[in-house]
Amino acid sequence: MSKFFNPRLSGLEAYTPGEQPRDRSYIKLNTNESPYPPSKGVRKALDRKRIDGLRLYCDPTATALKEELARVYDKKSSQIFVSNGSDDILNFAFLAFGADGILFPDISYGFYEVFANLHSLPFEKVPLKSDFSIDADDYCKRNKMVVIANPNAPTGMVLPLKKIEKILKANPENVVLIDEAYVDFGGESCADLVDKYPNLLCVQTFSKSRSMAGARLGFAIASEELIADLEKIKYSTNPYDVNALTQAAGVAALQENGYYMRNCRRIIKTRNYAKKALENLGFEVLPSKANFLFAKCGQFTGLELYLLLKEKGILVRHFEKDRIKDFNRITIGSQKEMEAFIAAVEEILGA
Amino acid sequence: MSKFFNPRLSGLEAYTPGEQPRDRSYIKLNTNESPYPPSKGVRKALDRKRIDGLRLYCDPTATALKEELARVYDKKSSQIFVSNGSDDILNFAFLAFGADGILFPDISYGFYEVFANLHSLPFEKVPLKSDFSIDADDYCKRNKMVVIANPNAPTGMVLPLKKIEKILKANPENVVLIDEAYVDFGGESCADLVDKYPNLLCVQTFSKSRSMAGARLGFAIASEELIADLEKIKYSTNPYDVNALTQAAGVAALQENGYYMRNCRRIIKTRNYAKKALENLGFEVLPSKANFLFAKCGQFTGLELYLLLKEKGILVRHFEKDRIKDFNRITIGSQKEMEAFIAAVEEILGA
Repeated sequence: MSKFFNPRLSGLEAYTPGEQPRDRSYIKLNTNESPYPPSKGVRKALDRKRIDGLRLYCDPTATALKEELARVYDKKSSQIFVSNGSDDILNFAFLAFGADGILFPDISYGFYEVFANLHSLPFEKVPLKSDFSIDADDYCKRNKMVVIANPNAPTGMVLPLKKIEKILKANPENVVLIDEAYVDFGGESCADLVDKYPNLLCVQTFSKSRSMAGARLGFAIASEELIADLEKIKYSTNPYDVNALTQAAGVAALQENGYYMRNCRRIIKTRNYAKKALENLGFEVLPSKANFLFAKCGQFTGLELYLLLKEKGILVRHFEKDRIKDFNRITIGSQKEMEAFIAAVEEILGA
Repeated sequence: MSKFFNPRLSGLEAYTPGEQPRDRSYIKLNTNESPYPPSKGVRKALDRKRIDGLRLYCDPTATALKEELARVYDKKSSQIFVSNGSDDILNFAFLAFGADGILFPDISYGFYEVFANLHSLPFEKVPLKSDFSIDADDYCKRNKMVVIANPNAPTGMVLPLKKIEKILKANPENVVLIDEAYVDFGGESCADLVDKYPNLLCVQTFSKSRSMAGARLGFAIASEELIADLEKIKYSTNPYDVNALTQAAGVAALQENGYYMRNCRRIIKTRNYAKKALENLGFEVLPSKANFLFAKCGQFTGLELYLLLKEKGILVRHFEKDRIKDFNRITIGSQKEMEAFIAAVEEILGA
């Protein structure tokens, strides 16, 4: 830290992204990416004309993209917000709506705490229950912003919509942000509740189910008022934050939405295979509705299994926190990748 | 504003981007874009393999891009920062280094004030001299962060490096941010001073001279310590903020840097033509080293001339501020576009 750095931020601990080692070729099951490429239309959309057009600023209103999202999610364009990955939306939302303090689970997406610290907002980490589930009652009548990933990460477990409605009703003066990064893999979206609850902010991303982690595109669905607030923050930081190629790719992807939803079904099928195979090997595997499994080996800690798998050219995620240090988070890759993963685990266990 | 919005930000006035009307085809001389497309290598870099690779997260360290920038600017990679447009860098820098307050010219890039308000940082707008020049003495020994666009916008006028050094020496405890968005059109960069002054932050962009406004790519050159501070903010907001296509496009553009520098020389030539032509028509034109001219018609206010030109299918920028309301900012387009612009002005003036 230089002597010029803002003293308010001196204790800031930044987020650590999943490792992207380039020393050899790995089967990457560590950052919840899709094993399937973007659809054909995305390639077609990024043609010479589009690239020549990069000399011009992109559309700050992202009108075409918002209209396409509105069509797919059956909303008005004015109920849609887009930005440079969903992290930007989370960041903007913490700043815009977190002044009274923020509640989120103790085991969840690690960036929530970073955003709260970045903006010096008070927050409270609510412990998950012993079975790693979220107790909706913990988030009721607390007069604070609520942030819940649904499905949660790294557990993959879901909170039923009825419970989310309970939280929404119990916090009418605070925003309830539901981070649905993984919702397309079997979860149930709260997007259709936004007309009923003006305090609901539903956040999604193209990074997982739509095979575009590298393009950076997140979106939010909410009441027009909440969207207008987010736009105000965006126009006070970086109005052109979604670049022209990503806007075009997003439109093309939504026009071929069936392709991506089919991929989700393939991933669910592969997830079922991998869960069963791990359980047969003695793992405890939480019930996941995401494109990853959260699994406890029993014979090795999360760190140990991570290292043993890495030696075999397979990357998974492990965690430092005491309560989950015996678990690994394993992204669901292609069927072939998961078979290689299971074979590697069998070798490690001598099974 | 919803009832949920952070009261600290209730007075926030967002930035207004230049208009992008789509009702008809315009000669766009209003947002300082390049009339020339990206180079061939950029098209080649955005191939099928790259687009298929969008399923994976982009490299958060942007190693290849930083190395290429380091090569072109003769620096170490650790002295380079990249982000999603230079607005993001300005935003991060205000947050990181502006806690003691910030000084910037009263007539300059309108976003500086927005960033200061966003982070609730005290700031002071220092009046330009009567000839629209910056007086370095106004920025000396003030114990505040200093932000100067060089060339300045919308004037196009430059502050000599000697004066910048004076400011750097007089503020050893504060960061001096030099915003060089327009430096490639005849200005002199301070990039080579960063080894001498640990408080210097030099910010540039691919939006103007490198024909990539729509791709969103900004970069900063500074001491390793300042760069590390900016990385800390980036990793606390959006580590993947430069998407994979833009990183690849940036690398390709730098490998064909000669093409872009030739375009800059063409734009300078066209600027000289347009300046002379406007002066022949009675305009007062400030001495610009940017890819735009700041010109006062005399017969019409800025708003009037803007409207008359818009009717003829030509967009320029006008301003509300009293001191510059008789001026227009006119981007330098291609030679043909500027000839059409001059012909339109002649018609309007009945010359």
